[in-house]
Amino acid sequence: MSTLNCELKVDLGDRSYSIYIGEGLHSDAEYYRRCIKGGQVMVVTNETIAPLYLEQTIAALDGFDVAQVVLPDGEVYKTLDVLNAIYTVLLEKRFNRKCTLIALGGGVVGDMAGFAAATYQRGVAFVQVPTTLLSQVDSSVGGKTGVNHALGKNMIGAFHQPLAVLADTATLKTLDDRQFSSGLAEIIKYGLIADADFFVWLEAHMDALLERDACSLATAIERSCRCKAGVVAADEKEAGQRALLNLGHTFGHAIETGMGYGEWLHGEAVATGMCMAADLSHRLGWLTTSELERTCQLIKRAGLPVTPPAAMSPEQFLALMAVDKKVLGNNLRLVLLKAIGRSLVTEDFDLAKLNETLAEYGR
Amino acid sequence: MSTLNCELKVDLGDRSYSIYIGEGLHSDAEYYRRCIKGGQVMVVTNETIAPLYLEQTIAALDGFDVAQVVLPDGEVYKTLDVLNAIYTVLLEKRFNRKCTLIALGGGVVGDMAGFAAATYQRGVAFVQVPTTLLSQVDSSVGGKTGVNHALGKNMIGAFHQPLAVLADTATLKTLDDRQFSSGLAEIIKYGLIADADFFVWLEAHMDALLERDACSLATAIERSCRCKAGVVAADEKEAGQRALLNLGHTFGHAIETGMGYGEWLHGEAVATGMCMAADLSHRLGWLTTSELERTCQLIKRAGLPVTPPAAMSPEQFLALMAVDKKVLGNNLRLVLLKAIGRSLVTEDFDLAKLNETLAEYGR
Repeated sequence: MSTLNCELKVDLGDRSYSIYIGEGLHSDAEYYRRCIKGGQVMVVTNETIAPLYLEQTIAALDGFDVAQVVLPDGEVYKTLDVLNAIYTVLLEKRFNRKCTLIALGGGVVGDMAGFAAATYQRGVAFVQVPTTLLSQVDSSVGGKTGVNHALGKNMIGAFHQPLAVLADTATLKTLDDRQFSSGLAEIIKYGLIADADFFVWLEAHMDALLERDACSLATAIERSCRCKAGVVAADEKEAGQRALLNLGHTFGHAIETGMGYGEWLHGEAVATGMCMAADLSHRLGWLTTSELERTCQLIKRAGLPVTPPAAMSPEQFLALMAVDKKVLGNNLRLVLLKAIGRSLVTEDFDLAKLNETLAEYGR
Repeated sequence: MSTLNCELKVDLGDRSYSIYIGEGLHSDAEYYRRCIKGGQVMVVTNETIAPLYLEQTIAALDGFDVAQVVLPDGEVYKTLDVLNAIYTVLLEKRFNRKCTLIALGGGVVGDMAGFAAATYQRGVAFVQVPTTLLSQVDSSVGGKTGVNHALGKNMIGAFHQPLAVLADTATLKTLDDRQFSSGLAEIIKYGLIADADFFVWLEAHMDALLERDACSLATAIERSCRCKAGVVAADEKEAGQRALLNLGHTFGHAIETGMGYGEWLHGEAVATGMCMAADLSHRLGWLTTSELERTCQLIKRAGLPVTPPAAMSPEQFLALMAVDKKVLGNNLRLVLLKAIGRSLVTEDFDLAKLNETLAEYGR
């Protein structure tokens, strides 16, 4: 049994697909039957998700020839070696090119299962069942799949669109608070970069979201995915628009690197980074004082940090930001805000103002 | 200095590209400058080809930021591990997503460099410089790239089209006779499956080809690539047409497996397989006696075997053919000839006739 709150169609010509958002979707046989054509199905998940949702998912796949792979949990396992283990099971089970992979888990599982699907026998089908808020609003749109290399994150990969995305809000109930808030950071980001109305909606519904109200979550996920789809589509016409999705990331990367990866969650670092980007945008005369305060206030209410770690100095920030991968040439490019809901990528800003922001935030 | 004999345009919408066929192309700077957009170029080759052609190729890339990777030679090295070594060099040299990979070598180098290009940073450009006759007529069209898995050949891969193919007939002069004849088997196959005029042309020019006459080679390569492009394009409309490219492969695989891989070259096994397919087609009343004789005669003149190894019995053939991967369900599907230049994929034939062919060819 399940409740569908929303079906969002992503229009990509003959690779179009639907994002279904609702409660209980991961265990509803109908959605799998609707989109999966062949008989062979492999569920890829990890050791954290498996005890929670694997059994129900496999029960919903009754009638298919089902195999499963349970990966170790964590970004550190997003490697070619672990990918090869997926291929091995596919071959041992004699899966052919009409098979379908189901990614049941967060971003790492989605990236790996998606890349396995992109490359097994030169491409088979896959369905995403994202079980974290971050993966529901981030990985559902854009088709990015891949693994890490020892010398760089996400350096090996492919674009591969899913047959469908089942974003099950019921799976968010088991998510710990920090992970949940990390997903909210991404959602707030969409409001800030491209959708002022959504930002206002978030201000009105933050309490409901924190209570993990299914209906509010579905709306937040739907509007986030719609926003990302808009930005990604615009990028095909106007190169670089996709970079708007990196709001807060340059400051955030500095925090992640400065603190050593893993101390702060990515979403937490981006949240503080967005406050700093808003602060700089305010100093440049773009964002009003009220807009700056509303931005930091909403981030704070989401349970996210609004100031960097006490240990970080302005000099450390500058040093770490200059090597961020978003820097093209020798100019520092930042995503900044003209207003809530209106963003731009620019290297044309007063560096003195950046230093003021760093002096304010760095200790 | 180089001579261009032919430019064949492969029409694939915004992924269209040209196959340039001529003498000395691999070391002509103009062709690289014409198609490569970014500044970073990596040449991927192997230890057999490197001493022969790498220096000239790199000289032709003057003005680009050039790196190189020399892989060990052989199908056994077509693995994820060796692929990872390519990624490592790309990352060590800080190659970005505007870089271009050049595949300088035969099929294995082309498959691996192509797959590395398909997946490095989710896809970068690549140029094919095939140096064997087989890779010039086979890998130039179709966009197949990939590596082997311990449990199966070509099980991991992607479709990725090149910016251009430089088929340099001068590089064929260093090819040993067996490898050269193996390429001829593929060329004869194209005449048999789809182009009777080309088959007649091959009968008239086999001596020139065996003397490695540049002009005749260019024509044979051009017509083979054109034929493959036609079959591949037809497959998008009529599913399964691409299977015609497997003429001789079911019998051939049985020979390769029966003899142990590596004893016979793939092209040699396919050559004998084509004779057997022609024999069966004749017994079914499709191919005339004259056509059967001309087929075997041309294959023989190309320096290829027309009979299987003496050790193989009809029973062994049948057992090995039934597990060939081209068998769908429990029916044996074969590519057979209605006439020279006209082929079909069918499982609708008299098994007694197949047994007659096996009795004739098996000992």
